[in-house]
Amino acid sequence: MFDILIRNSAWVLTGRGDVRGDAMAALAPVRAGAVGIKGASVAWVGLEADLPKEALAQTPRVLDAQGGLVTPGLLDCHTHAVFAGQRAHEFAMRCAGKSYLEIAAAGGGIASTVRATRKATEDDLIASARPRLRRLLEQGVTTVEVKSGYGLNFDDELKMLRVVKRLNALQPATLVPTLLCAHAIPEEHRAHREAYFELCLNSILPAAAKEHLAAFCDIFVEQHAFTADEARTLLARASQLGMGVRLHVDQLTPGQKGAELAVELKASSADHLEQISEQGIAALARSETVAVLAPTSTLFVKARPFAPGRKLREAGAVVALCTNVNPGSAMSDSVSLAMGLACLENGLTPAEALLGFTRAAAMALRLPQAGRLQEGAPADVAIFACPDIESIPYNMGTNLVRTVVKSGRVVVG
Amino acid sequence: MFDILIRNSAWVLTGRGDVRGDAMAALAPVRAGAVGIKGASVAWVGLEADLPKEALAQTPRVLDAQGGLVTPGLLDCHTHAVFAGQRAHEFAMRCAGKSYLEIAAAGGGIASTVRATRKATEDDLIASARPRLRRLLEQGVTTVEVKSGYGLNFDDELKMLRVVKRLNALQPATLVPTLLCAHAIPEEHRAHREAYFELCLNSILPAAAKEHLAAFCDIFVEQHAFTADEARTLLARASQLGMGVRLHVDQLTPGQKGAELAVELKASSADHLEQISEQGIAALARSETVAVLAPTSTLFVKARPFAPGRKLREAGAVVALCTNVNPGSAMSDSVSLAMGLACLENGLTPAEALLGFTRAAAMALRLPQAGRLQEGAPADVAIFACPDIESIPYNMGTNLVRTVVKSGRVVVG
Repeated sequence: MFDILIRNSAWVLTGRGDVRGDAMAALAPVRAGAVGIKGASVAWVGLEADLPKEALAQTPRVLDAQGGLVTPGLLDCHTHAVFAGQRAHEFAMRCAGKSYLEIAAAGGGIASTVRATRKATEDDLIASARPRLRRLLEQGVTTVEVKSGYGLNFDDELKMLRVVKRLNALQPATLVPTLLCAHAIPEEHRAHREAYFELCLNSILPAAAKEHLAAFCDIFVEQHAFTADEARTLLARASQLGMGVRLHVDQLTPGQKGAELAVELKASSADHLEQISEQGIAALARSETVAVLAPTSTLFVKARPFAPGRKLREAGAVVALCTNVNPGSAMSDSVSLAMGLACLENGLTPAEALLGFTRAAAMALRLPQAGRLQEGAPADVAIFACPDIESIPYNMGTNLVRTVVKSGRVVVG
Repeated sequence: MFDILIRNSAWVLTGRGDVRGDAMAALAPVRAGAVGIKGASVAWVGLEADLPKEALAQTPRVLDAQGGLVTPGLLDCHTHAVFAGQRAHEFAMRCAGKSYLEIAAAGGGIASTVRATRKATEDDLIASARPRLRRLLEQGVTTVEVKSGYGLNFDDELKMLRVVKRLNALQPATLVPTLLCAHAIPEEHRAHREAYFELCLNSILPAAAKEHLAAFCDIFVEQHAFTADEARTLLARASQLGMGVRLHVDQLTPGQKGAELAVELKASSADHLEQISEQGIAALARSETVAVLAPTSTLFVKARPFAPGRKLREAGAVVALCTNVNPGSAMSDSVSLAMGLACLENGLTPAEALLGFTRAAAMALRLPQAGRLQEGAPADVAIFACPDIESIPYNMGTNLVRTVVKSGRVVVG
């Protein structure tokens, strides 16, 4: 009947409701629900009491949720999970009150990750990324967006994207590759930044498109990084080449109008948003652009305020969450920490936080079938050892996931 | 020669230096060190190059640290790891801006844990605590202080301490039991709080002492909890009965002079200290009383400021850290989160944070041989999959511990 049957749940979160509406309605939980899986897809979702009588006897593999919560596989829609080296010392310097410039002068900052990543082989990068992806998978994350952005030249940006492609085949999670050559101006181009932008626009982007290495193109719009006009130019070209677009905006400097820019460019997501204005909130609320919040990095870089998650939700914006795992601003792959901070500091409810790692994240990645459990959806499922959504952020920093199914295969538990 | 040999380390942290001095000097690392274990004790610590020639060949079990960090087993010197029920809904209410009174009116607060804990059998409490202790052990925590304080009557306070005693025999970590009957005024005594204090002083405390169920007596000095004079009376009696004493002080209300009180009472530790004054800092610095910080709970209850860890260290106080894992104010057992917050928010260095979970915590628990690796010390060891101390708080919310040895037995990895 089914290949796998998940039963004895407290709730199955189907994610069938309106993603902009009340979060609990959007998650559309079914009390004492069951999920039938056939092949790589969900074949049946409903009350366990409504299961066809023969289902239990005829299903070869029955997963007992033991009264836990059954959710769609999570999506981490913004990560930099491929990189070489580490920046623990920089973290310590920042905690000791050192400034960005002092850290850069000591060889820190993004340039240090770029140096290490350029030196690394594809195999090196694969070896160091696999445990990170495994830890995410063990937390129920079955889809992970991964950005380039530590190569910052033709060869090394493409190398990073090839690594993501190879990793996609080497482990269970679906990886969504994003070209972020416009992450920073590399050191060798400091004196002629326009030349680097030209390289991004006319060489790296077309090559990534030609090799089908990137689903999205991203750009960091900020002082010392890239301008709004550069974003318009680069992302228009990316769209022409068939890529989705997304932006790092309104992270550090107020008054940049980054959210408005993302909406103007019909971006799939506008990410960070600590410094978003009221006008930016209103613009996102009227748009299809998802607000992606990264609270762990706000904590990690000691930036304040946290992004106004509550205001974004109340205005009607779609709000997703991410770990933003990366060696500089968020060396944390803890989903429950990101969700906990989102509740404590961004003002989301636990249900909104979980929506942010499921339906809203799927919308940010333009994967409309992901992040939900309904007939025909991918059979990506997480089973949590807790009976309610609130317990996930509440158990902050603790992984409560017991079992993970990816494309109809049990990959954890 | 040895029963176990730990080799191929980046560093072995011996913890042999002065706990009040520079933290790195206190941790006294040995580059490329090795540790020989015989029975339940450390038999040899030094440079691997200085190992007796026959050691490698003659030791039956060799643990390869794979270039990682070898530390003393950690001590979590302040937990409430035994309790029944959970308060996830209260967490969600607090995130939504509900006040303490609103939460209490909805059946939340400590009273809800007291109701659940009173209903629970010893076996229930043991079953729910074991996974928490296991998660701490997997993070290298080989000694855990556990408080009562959710019974708040004669039978249930003693029940909690008996549970700690039974748990001590059921799992590898050493548990240090603390009587905290003076945690809150139970609901049934609201109208006659003095009667409850009398019960603590004249019934519960002597009974716990007679049954040898508590190494320490603790009290929460705060508005709506207990007064400084009650602390003087209760802890003087506890001292007479041979217990060590410790206090929850200066957590919520400024101007309480809790640290000064702890010093006056020659307490082993003064815990929380978010509201400590300059005078309190000076008093701790001149004393043998350890300042125990619980940054996860400061985050969790949205209290500000964080305790002034930097000032305490610079004044010369001994500063320990803890998870404070408990269902109300810190439902997190993540050591790396506590260490990361201590660096980001309390101003400690990574070395000070690790000292806070080793030597300083051992001092708070009056276990002078614990929290260090030297000949004759207990063979409690953690091996981290990272080459330096900074990587521990930097990888916030991620457990990097690969192997744990407790009393000469490999218990994790």
